[in-house]
Amino acid sequence: MASIFTRIIRGEIPSDRVYEDSAVVAFLDVTPLSPGHVLVVPVEEKEYLHQLSEESAAALGRALPRVARAVLAATGAAAYNILQNNGALANQAVMHVHFHIIPKFEDGRGLGLVWKASKAEPNESAELAARIRERIGE
Amino acid sequence: MASIFTRIIRGEIPSDRVYEDSAVVAFLDVTPLSPGHVLVVPVEEKEYLHQLSEESAAALGRALPRVARAVLAATGAAAYNILQNNGALANQAVMHVHFHIIPKFEDGRGLGLVWKASKAEPNESAELAARIRERIGE
Repeated sequence: MASIFTRIIRGEIPSDRVYEDSAVVAFLDVTPLSPGHVLVVPVEEKEYLHQLSEESAAALGRALPRVARAVLAATGAAAYNILQNNGALANQAVMHVHFHIIPKFEDGRGLGLVWKASKAEPNESAELAARIRERIGE
Repeated sequence: MASIFTRIIRGEIPSDRVYEDSAVVAFLDVTPLSPGHVLVVPVEEKEYLHQLSEESAAALGRALPRVARAVLAATGAAAYNILQNNGALANQAVMHVHFHIIPKFEDGRGLGLVWKASKAEPNESAELAARIRERIGE
């Protein structure tokens, strides 16, 4: 069963498309947080970012600044957030990788963040970093 | 004046590094939202994503899934958010492009989102999408 985004990419469901290349399609979010809220989606249908091929991931990386420049020029926004959620617990609603580009305006329209940071404990951090490094490339 | 991230990349300021290639360095955030909160930073020193070269942007795209896989394996997290803020209004604190990889845990540790969506008006959306499309590649 194709995801709703695959059906949009195929043109089976209409969308307000703003960009496409061979690996990436971008279109307006139908329930935007602010004007110009765009979804940037790989043609490759994977649920999570960490499942993407290197080719799709690089193509997404290349597309994001291009689409962001056009969104800023068209909306007049100067600030924006890029957000990509993985897993229902992390607020992912459609199970096909997508990056949000969300313009942020002075009147507050855009993404709101709740930032509850803690201070890292140096020994724990060094040990955790070593564990992550060991797993790169697995 | 080099950014604090450029100084970290050069090794002038210590960090808990987890990944590096010729264009990208990743290290633990010193004030994490959750264990395994990593910053993925281009060596190219630009304030905003839309200013990045295509090469840096593609390299960031390639690095994100690689680093995310290692963070998940090392922390046991299943969900995570990718966030990249542009402009003080959008909560950018260090003026050198950086992507956050933020594991999200069942106990709530991780990124909190405030999602005030509205329903797009179809005619306005079609017109806005056309304006964005026209500006792609400028």
